[in-house]
Amino acid sequence: MIDQRRLPAAFEVVTLHKWSEVVEAIRNMTVRGAPAIGAAAAFGLALAANESGAHDTTAFLADLEFAAAALKATRPTAVNLAWAVDRVVNALGKDLAMKHSLEVDDLRQVVLDESQRIADEDVATNKRMAEYGSNLIHDGDTILHHCNTGALAVVDWGTALGVIRTAHEQGKHINVLVDETRPRLQGSRLTAWELGQYGIPYEIIADNAAGYFLRTGQVQEVLFGADRIAANGDVANKIGTYMLALAANDNKVPVYSVAPTSSIDLSVADGSLIPIEERDPEEVLGLQFHGERVSPEGARARNPAFDVTPNRLISAIITENGIVMPPFDVNIKKIK
Amino acid sequence: MIDQRRLPAAFEVVTLHKWSEVVEAIRNMTVRGAPAIGAAAAFGLALAANESGAHDTTAFLADLEFAAAALKATRPTAVNLAWAVDRVVNALGKDLAMKHSLEVDDLRQVVLDESQRIADEDVATNKRMAEYGSNLIHDGDTILHHCNTGALAVVDWGTALGVIRTAHEQGKHINVLVDETRPRLQGSRLTAWELGQYGIPYEIIADNAAGYFLRTGQVQEVLFGADRIAANGDVANKIGTYMLALAANDNKVPVYSVAPTSSIDLSVADGSLIPIEERDPEEVLGLQFHGERVSPEGARARNPAFDVTPNRLISAIITENGIVMPPFDVNIKKIK
Repeated sequence: MIDQRRLPAAFEVVTLHKWSEVVEAIRNMTVRGAPAIGAAAAFGLALAANESGAHDTTAFLADLEFAAAALKATRPTAVNLAWAVDRVVNALGKDLAMKHSLEVDDLRQVVLDESQRIADEDVATNKRMAEYGSNLIHDGDTILHHCNTGALAVVDWGTALGVIRTAHEQGKHINVLVDETRPRLQGSRLTAWELGQYGIPYEIIADNAAGYFLRTGQVQEVLFGADRIAANGDVANKIGTYMLALAANDNKVPVYSVAPTSSIDLSVADGSLIPIEERDPEEVLGLQFHGERVSPEGARARNPAFDVTPNRLISAIITENGIVMPPFDVNIKKIK
Repeated sequence: MIDQRRLPAAFEVVTLHKWSEVVEAIRNMTVRGAPAIGAAAAFGLALAANESGAHDTTAFLADLEFAAAALKATRPTAVNLAWAVDRVVNALGKDLAMKHSLEVDDLRQVVLDESQRIADEDVATNKRMAEYGSNLIHDGDTILHHCNTGALAVVDWGTALGVIRTAHEQGKHINVLVDETRPRLQGSRLTAWELGQYGIPYEIIADNAAGYFLRTGQVQEVLFGADRIAANGDVANKIGTYMLALAANDNKVPVYSVAPTSSIDLSVADGSLIPIEERDPEEVLGLQFHGERVSPEGARARNPAFDVTPNRLISAIITENGIVMPPFDVNIKKIK
């Protein structure tokens, strides 16, 4: 996988040989983005299957369950992680139930096949979302985008950034205002880098400036992804999304969350029930200018990584099965 | 003056000998904060008076008018700058009108006296604002604060941070969530440093996280200063204030702008007429982590330094003449 912590200064590909390395890569954000960590976790199980020294299916399943639990515990907010891990484990269970006299090697193949299927489907899913979403984008639009939702955040193409890419490929002239997305700066680091690769014009802004551009009529759409969508359409996404959606609503600019149906968690009635990860304060405090730390020695920080945007602030949710409009509590169940 | 660009890494005091150095110091933000740049500009005029080689009052006044125009042009948004410069120039005019046979040296003294008066009054003004404002703060409150409004932003004590200091000195237990305040990071750099000096507990947060803490009920008041307040109570302040005020309002948390009446500009009917400074994109792009630039080479950025918070989002404006409540279009005229 591409080491996303090193971009844009360096493009480095790291190869992981053990499932425990995948656990660490998800935790330290070598790989990030809800669909990307889902696929990474699935391949983590494929590595666990490979590493398992079990000679019988019961012991093999126990090894897999152990790795599955560890992979699911790496990051709590994005539901795609649990969704992908559960899907691989369920594929094993289904296969076991259907066939008799299975060898451990057969099960290894089941795990690898299902992981590969998740990865392949993700690309197709993104392309379909992008097609649907591009209908909402018009020639000449300026789009305000939060965090990174491009090829780096998925297996390929992207969710919200996928919509922008497809609109661009359709010949629409798009300008993107890139929220730098403190504290991890996925906007400055990753989205700006991707947009540069695709030849799509962009300007980076401090997250604080989004309200100014919305209020002065310079933005036609606000786009972002989702880490988990509750049954009522509340969207957990990168910290700052809620304030951005408020500012867009205050200026009647439409707000689109672009996410695969695997990001929808019907078991969660509303956003208040979604666990919010709090990360290392050093992500806030470690900032530098001219090589000097910005915060005083001994400073403390709080660092919630996600927030919840209530459904009333979301204009539409764009999925691979179509565009979901309000009322979300009714329409999300239909699309899922 | 303290070089605010070097804090908190280094505490350096620079001495300015020429009014042109004051122009540069305001422009490059060696000194910042609306009341502080007002007082600095006034002393800039005192230096101009000292530097002038004029032998008659007409030539002397022309020199002063030249420096006054240059000082006023350094930064467009905060009105305190123009207010302080005009006040010094008006003091000269009044003195000239009242007395006959004035020497240039007499006028030099008028300029210096008026500058010193502005500085002295600023401290008293801050103390009075802080007294009024502290009545709104309760023991145990967590206050969310944007930008820097402490002693560094004024001549001494502070505006919004002055309220917090006074509440703290009254024995109230206060916790401050410090918006880091991208792009210039006045929160991380200056407010955190000041709070550390005063022994007031604080935690730095990414500006994006303000909405999360407001929505989860962890904040009792939002406090910030003002760079210019229009006649209708719209508040121009550091970029990001508008989104913060939106998030506070969405969660029924009161929003207080703390500013001297010299920040009120009755000549401006509403906030849309306040000029918004756009600064060097490098303030956005130059960010580093571990000594490495965060944004890709060749990236472009937009960097508006202020935004306007509409009066409907402001709960009260705290001035040295008392607390102004809505309707602001009526009550601001009374207080001013």
